[in-house]
Amino acid sequence: MNPSVDADRLRADLEANAAFGRVEHDDPEKRGRTNRTGSEANAAARDRLVERLAAAGLDVAVDEVGNVLGTWTPDSADPAAAPVVSGSHLDSVPDGGIFDGPLGVYAALEAVRAMQDGGVQPARPIGVVSFTEEEGATFGDGLLGSSAATGETDAEAALARESDDGETLGEALDRIGYRGDDAIDPGTWAAFYELHVEQDTVLEEAGADVGVVTTITGITHCEATIEGEANHAGATAMGDRTDALAAASEFVLDVEAAANAVVDGSSASAVGTVGSLSVSPNATNVVPGRVDAGVDVRDVEAESTEAIVSAARESLARLERERGVETSFERPFDVPPTHMSERLRETAHAAASGAGRTAIDLHSGAAHDAMRVARVTDAALLFAPSRDGVSHSPREWTDWADCAAATEVLAGALARVAVDGE
Amino acid sequence: MNPSVDADRLRADLEANAAFGRVEHDDPEKRGRTNRTGSEANAAARDRLVERLAAAGLDVAVDEVGNVLGTWTPDSADPAAAPVVSGSHLDSVPDGGIFDGPLGVYAALEAVRAMQDGGVQPARPIGVVSFTEEEGATFGDGLLGSSAATGETDAEAALARESDDGETLGEALDRIGYRGDDAIDPGTWAAFYELHVEQDTVLEEAGADVGVVTTITGITHCEATIEGEANHAGATAMGDRTDALAAASEFVLDVEAAANAVVDGSSASAVGTVGSLSVSPNATNVVPGRVDAGVDVRDVEAESTEAIVSAARESLARLERERGVETSFERPFDVPPTHMSERLRETAHAAASGAGRTAIDLHSGAAHDAMRVARVTDAALLFAPSRDGVSHSPREWTDWADCAAATEVLAGALARVAVDGE
Repeated sequence: MNPSVDADRLRADLEANAAFGRVEHDDPEKRGRTNRTGSEANAAARDRLVERLAAAGLDVAVDEVGNVLGTWTPDSADPAAAPVVSGSHLDSVPDGGIFDGPLGVYAALEAVRAMQDGGVQPARPIGVVSFTEEEGATFGDGLLGSSAATGETDAEAALARESDDGETLGEALDRIGYRGDDAIDPGTWAAFYELHVEQDTVLEEAGADVGVVTTITGITHCEATIEGEANHAGATAMGDRTDALAAASEFVLDVEAAANAVVDGSSASAVGTVGSLSVSPNATNVVPGRVDAGVDVRDVEAESTEAIVSAARESLARLERERGVETSFERPFDVPPTHMSERLRETAHAAASGAGRTAIDLHSGAAHDAMRVARVTDAALLFAPSRDGVSHSPREWTDWADCAAATEVLAGALARVAVDGE
Repeated sequence: MNPSVDADRLRADLEANAAFGRVEHDDPEKRGRTNRTGSEANAAARDRLVERLAAAGLDVAVDEVGNVLGTWTPDSADPAAAPVVSGSHLDSVPDGGIFDGPLGVYAALEAVRAMQDGGVQPARPIGVVSFTEEEGATFGDGLLGSSAATGETDAEAALARESDDGETLGEALDRIGYRGDDAIDPGTWAAFYELHVEQDTVLEEAGADVGVVTTITGITHCEATIEGEANHAGATAMGDRTDALAAASEFVLDVEAAANAVVDGSSASAVGTVGSLSVSPNATNVVPGRVDAGVDVRDVEAESTEAIVSAARESLARLERERGVETSFERPFDVPPTHMSERLRETAHAAASGAGRTAIDLHSGAAHDAMRVARVTDAALLFAPSRDGVSHSPREWTDWADCAAATEVLAGALARVAVDGE
């Protein structure tokens, strides 16, 4: 029940996909890729996936938000049985890595081909899925395709989202020919596995081949504004200033300190980040008048998130008192922790043992499409090692052998669930 | 020797000028103006000045960088005598105030008209000057017209500077008809007075009518870069990060603390500002990988600047050690403190006494065209009060009565120097 994957075939697919939106770097350690939903590069990546799915005998469907699903229905399978599906996404952040997303899509396809080559006889159809706009880099909301497919987001609302260029997702999909009319409903799937790069160093440090995710952390995004008084940097005495950037600097350090306090205390997996900061008017010779900051807080325990968010609010209240700034704080995005299917996790461990690969349990600090699918059916998330844990960067890297090893475990898990699973 | 100024005539000129590039605000406390060198608004403001200069009987000259000089040569004056000149600039920062610059130009014209009306008999010609691109908002270098006129900057280099639209200053001046061929050489002037709004609260707090600047502070601009490692905000544990923004936040606070330490110690006038900060990639869910910061440091004492710049360098060195970031530090702009003419300062105080106005000594933390002119002849800088010290903002305000009072002192000083001066 452990089909042999073809490491070279998998690598060839990933290398071919990496060329779409390739970003050139002089540093040979960097392999960048900008694959924005609706771009020419995105259309080319989708076209090639459809071609590869068809070449392996899968029937291809495209839904209204551009999710692509290829389904293999072998003679051994009941065509009416709930399928087992695996996949991830093809879009990327600007100058992102070549594995984040595509590994999960092409590993799923390779798993199907390995089952075909190995004569596995699944009782259910097996699907390979690629979700639209997982990164949210272009239409501003991550997990967009899986959210629409699972009913978490209204499809019409998703299609109406606009890029910075003012084009809606619907218009962009029409333009590239990926606004389909097929139904793709994860609620009808028997199981879902996503393979993704870890984006952290837990596997690397443990020397493990595969990570089996127990929980995807909750994610909270907050938006803080700090308003002071813009003024001439030369003519305004130090004592007469209300410097929004100096106040915001304290806020950044307070958020970092709050996250570190939780890590040292109740939960080592907690993180808190001020990832974005925009200064106005942002001129060297003007005392900053306003700062907008974006805060990201995550943990497997909801209590950690509340502790860090409270500390951020308290920081702003203190800055109002001590520095005379005005502040606001909103919490526009809030997702609780998501637990992965125990049945599918156990199957993944069995597949790893069967293939002679080492697997360990860990959590995911990043959101993935599996988080949305888990709301409507059993879902699991597997990780391949990331070199130095680097991600969302052209330095992201997973060795080709590690890609193949993780794909072997994925194929074994899919085979087990498709042959034996309820 | 104290000509009476016509407050209504001065106000009418300033109100008319404020209409060129007017920015509408709902808040009646805000009167904004965007007057970029070479814009339609700038051309209109120049045209009106030329018309007003001519209407008062001044001969108008325009030099190759667009500086405008009107000269009144009354019968009492030796046409060959070195003139006494006063003025400032008409350009503004985006959505700046209506007094910063124009007050000095139209106060000089009003002073000439007041002398004409009062029958003052100057022994020298009297000039009214408007310098090009004082703010540096469009062609990227402040004091550009006065720098070119005084030889501090090569005129050809000034003309070759480009706006963000890729147009050179020379092309812009050609387009609006203000690339002249007259010579304007402040080195041939007997004296120069500039009246400007204070942009700070010293006069307001002292209840004084006029400020007589002793020294224009030195100005140093530094550019710091802090490089960490961009990484996934959810998947990168707190202990595994090299967060460039957290490091930069410490840098901002270190610069502020260093300036405050100098203020508390050796020199109350010292200021240090991180005015600009750009974060990359600047996404809420990515640990910041790089920050570029612009630092502005000023004081009347060069030692203060050196102390703050040293503290900034030490901060970066500490952050390299403690946070593992890589940093760089450059100092692309460095102007030493400029002392104003003692003779012209004493004359300004005498004029204030003669007019029954209160005048106090203070320093200027902002650069002004008088800083350049002071390199080639005796120069003085007078300040009118700024409400709440606000400047480079549509909230900038100087009461009309304060404009007139300061103009009266300017007129008295010009009359004294032009009648009696060496």
